[in-house]
Amino acid sequence: MTWSADPAFEAGSINVCDLGLCQVRLQDDARFPWLILIPRVAGAVELVDLGRKDQGRLMGEIAQASEAVRALGAHLGRPVEKLNVAAIGNVTAQLHVHVVGRRRDDGLWPDPVWGRGEARRYGDRREELGQTVRDILLPLTPANAGAQMK
Amino acid sequence: MTWSADPAFEAGSINVCDLGLCQVRLQDDARFPWLILIPRVAGAVELVDLGRKDQGRLMGEIAQASEAVRALGAHLGRPVEKLNVAAIGNVTAQLHVHVVGRRRDDGLWPDPVWGRGEARRYGDRREELGQTVRDILLPLTPANAGAQMK
Repeated sequence: MTWSADPAFEAGSINVCDLGLCQVRLQDDARFPWLILIPRVAGAVELVDLGRKDQGRLMGEIAQASEAVRALGAHLGRPVEKLNVAAIGNVTAQLHVHVVGRRRDDGLWPDPVWGRGEARRYGDRREELGQTVRDILLPLTPANAGAQMK
Repeated sequence: MTWSADPAFEAGSINVCDLGLCQVRLQDDARFPWLILIPRVAGAVELVDLGRKDQGRLMGEIAQASEAVRALGAHLGRPVEKLNVAAIGNVTAQLHVHVVGRRRDDGLWPDPVWGRGEARRYGDRREELGQTVRDILLPLTPANAGAQMK
């Protein structure tokens, strides 16, 4: 079984890059700096569907995505005050983890973001912000740690 | 700095047991089989506040709690169809992870559970169900794996 991202992700997010385990997507919603990690493991629905080693890799990539979400919030002039990290999947079952940056003034605080309100699209800034996330994220990957230190 | 659970958890959940890293609490809400893991790490608010090793231990305990939530759902005659796992903390900042068992007929599906509806208390069954979770969870801990196999 080969892996591919569920087409349902296309409507609301853009593919930013691949990390060691996950495809990283930028949620196209200017209300919150918000990344989605999708482990490239065919058939996985629950965190516990991953093997122990992949579970560890996922945790590492959640940490990378957390740093990137904070950097994206700062880049947009809205520094993140709290991270919300969740694997829900009630609508799109394919295993994916949300990493969302929240602020007390974000209009939805303290409620969670899922299934609430309407996305505000990035519009013209979508590709630029995808590139911004890529620029933040790729130097954080272990494979690039050597290059980064040169 | 010594660790203690935020008193805010007392109102809505009961202390079930300690795993290697986390205190495990049963959410006192009969709508969903629902456990909360609170890493016993003073000052931790975000997943990324944990060291790499504790992040790995937390992932292992999420897997144990997932198994326990499924077993609790089955025990209550309502087998879990989907797990929802989340570290939010917008209301109570102390780092904690929710592991919630969901069903399509649970009255809230597909919405997330946080901040929606009113808890339906377990009432008289609270202590009994806490014991049930303890009985499920403790044999799953690596320290007891030997005893379990005897």
